[in-house]
Amino acid sequence: MKLNTSLSTMPAGYLFAEVAKRIKEYSASNPDAAILRLGIGDVTLPLVSAITDAFTIAVQEMGTPAGFRGYGPDFGYDFLIDAIIAGDYTARGVEINRDEVFISDGAKSDVGNLQELFAWDAKIAVTDPVYPVYVDSNAMAGRLGQYVDGKWTNLCYLPCNAENGFVPALPKEKVDVIYLCYPNNPTGTVLTRDQLKPFVDYALENDALIIYDAAYKAFITEKDVPLSIYELPGAKKCAIECCSFSKTAGFTGTRCAYTVVPKELEYDGVSLNRIWGRRQATKFNGVSYPVQRAAAAVYTEEGQKQIQESIAYYLENARIIREGLVKAGVQVFGGVNAPYIWMKTPDDMKSWDFFDLLLKKAHVVGTPGEGFGPSGEGYFRLTAFNTKENTQAAVERIVQIL
Amino acid sequence: MKLNTSLSTMPAGYLFAEVAKRIKEYSASNPDAAILRLGIGDVTLPLVSAITDAFTIAVQEMGTPAGFRGYGPDFGYDFLIDAIIAGDYTARGVEINRDEVFISDGAKSDVGNLQELFAWDAKIAVTDPVYPVYVDSNAMAGRLGQYVDGKWTNLCYLPCNAENGFVPALPKEKVDVIYLCYPNNPTGTVLTRDQLKPFVDYALENDALIIYDAAYKAFITEKDVPLSIYELPGAKKCAIECCSFSKTAGFTGTRCAYTVVPKELEYDGVSLNRIWGRRQATKFNGVSYPVQRAAAAVYTEEGQKQIQESIAYYLENARIIREGLVKAGVQVFGGVNAPYIWMKTPDDMKSWDFFDLLLKKAHVVGTPGEGFGPSGEGYFRLTAFNTKENTQAAVERIVQIL
Repeated sequence: MKLNTSLSTMPAGYLFAEVAKRIKEYSASNPDAAILRLGIGDVTLPLVSAITDAFTIAVQEMGTPAGFRGYGPDFGYDFLIDAIIAGDYTARGVEINRDEVFISDGAKSDVGNLQELFAWDAKIAVTDPVYPVYVDSNAMAGRLGQYVDGKWTNLCYLPCNAENGFVPALPKEKVDVIYLCYPNNPTGTVLTRDQLKPFVDYALENDALIIYDAAYKAFITEKDVPLSIYELPGAKKCAIECCSFSKTAGFTGTRCAYTVVPKELEYDGVSLNRIWGRRQATKFNGVSYPVQRAAAAVYTEEGQKQIQESIAYYLENARIIREGLVKAGVQVFGGVNAPYIWMKTPDDMKSWDFFDLLLKKAHVVGTPGEGFGPSGEGYFRLTAFNTKENTQAAVERIVQIL
Repeated sequence: MKLNTSLSTMPAGYLFAEVAKRIKEYSASNPDAAILRLGIGDVTLPLVSAITDAFTIAVQEMGTPAGFRGYGPDFGYDFLIDAIIAGDYTARGVEINRDEVFISDGAKSDVGNLQELFAWDAKIAVTDPVYPVYVDSNAMAGRLGQYVDGKWTNLCYLPCNAENGFVPALPKEKVDVIYLCYPNNPTGTVLTRDQLKPFVDYALENDALIIYDAAYKAFITEKDVPLSIYELPGAKKCAIECCSFSKTAGFTGTRCAYTVVPKELEYDGVSLNRIWGRRQATKFNGVSYPVQRAAAAVYTEEGQKQIQESIAYYLENARIIREGLVKAGVQVFGGVNAPYIWMKTPDDMKSWDFFDLLLKKAHVVGTPGEGFGPSGEGYFRLTAFNTKENTQAAVERIVQIL
């Protein structure tokens, strides 16, 4: 059987598997250590009642002859699509049509699958550090060349670091696709409208595509930061936008997301909306009906009020981390429009060494920056997804060992 | 932007979109026609109470600090995996380990994604007629050549028809992968253990892989028909098995499935279990926790009792269709171990012509065999997924126009 060798030779292990392994090993020999986790970007607050109420009603419906639903529309129910358009776009002056929104089980699935739209030799650019899925999904398709010394030979890296204020430069070469994630995972930094505009202009001029991952948009607090790339003129001609309920409404374990593929998006006369629809209709069978009802409840008045409280809670944690570290003299980024804080390691320590130090001396878990790409070396990610008490305790412990 | 031209040039339309379009057009000009649908293979009975009860409890858990769950294990919760192994394998004498079962949102996703394991030039074989996802997912990856006169130039078709009793011959050429779906969609026919064995032997001898789609296994009534390909010696070394709760327990709108990738499955020293795990961990984020609890309830005593009643209901419908048509002199296949009945069209009528005739004269919808592949021409699929009353009425109407 002829194997996909691009997949079979992938470098081992997803970042968080290694993190989990080191925690497990340490815990096994130190069972009394009370470890505080600011590592994986996973929400901790329960689903709000507006959501569980709608979810429960839909489950009950499924148990009745009149309310039962079998296969739903491949691209999602109109009740959810309409709620998304009204709540996330029309309210902000962006016009999106029903057949431009594709409901899915997660932004990870969508950003992983979108590369199926590209030729095997399309040239890809990513910001660095980066959410690993953009890179790995393209590598598995054989698009990135070889993995040598922690870098893919045929991937265009756009470094983001303290020196450039985490505003990536435009690609120096012509690329076909640029992945942008803002607010950014892992750095928690953002691009203002003015800083994003050059990327839209580049894409329009170079017939390139932007995959815009806006999974963390619910955390945006500053007015000059766009909530959608489509706020920028011309973006509908060059960008796909991926959004998720995971961080917006605590859906990491409930699973629902959506991706916008505008009808205006055409390359060589081919509509990406049409071919993404073809892909989804062939390899995906829609999202669970009760889950879609739960997601629609996010946009009710009560739902909005409740999820905003959760987001405020996480943002307060981010503030505690940011200010605690700044006070201790640490160079810190992000955490204002995002649940992630990106810190410089002390004395330019290697990020995995700092991980081990923090685990062993402070019993605090974060994520080593190097796991997100070469430019992540020397940085470390902390997340706001824990209780306020644990967050405060973790910051105190970190500060003590610095 | 360099496009995946294998995707962008895919022949338009998924079969059921065309079916839906013709119904819509006819209904628009004949609003009084009471159309009976035996077309799409979608369940109609509500979720049973054992399932909605477990589903509801899990939704409520998600609303409490103690019960909330964020990201679950990428490959599914042990409580569900263990229930599957005990209920579907151990009970039948097949040994499967926890890390060989991958929970997903649907068998359609899995059978669509599994081709990512293969090289771009792997040679594929399918039975014909066939569930379109096997073919389309490989075509989109550029593996099947050109689509000429309704056939892919680089796909090995294994015809199944009245002449060979719907038992496909082995491939005459060396192929890398064979997709088998038993009980079969669309024909409703099965292979006995003895009839399946040559395929396992072929795969072992030729270092080939079988993708065994067992989505309809819950409908098997005859003892010599295997419930799992792993009942056959050697199959763990050459087969992946895809199963689903969609038809077993009415989950088409709830979404949950699982795929078994045995550890023994190796090609060129590469473990398919490992690389499928790498694929899933990268591009998939697990199934909704409440949905997994709902699926686990399928294996409780009450759950088993209740879903068996639903399956018996559908099988009774299949009997009504089969016997009604046989009595009218129609040549009929399937419907004994499957919810599908595959009939020969009268007077060798083209299957789309018969579709139109049935729609317009009998107000009954089925699915034209030609939509499932070249060997489906001259056949027509009817499904048992309707009420008993509608099924009886539909058969009476069909018989009248023959």
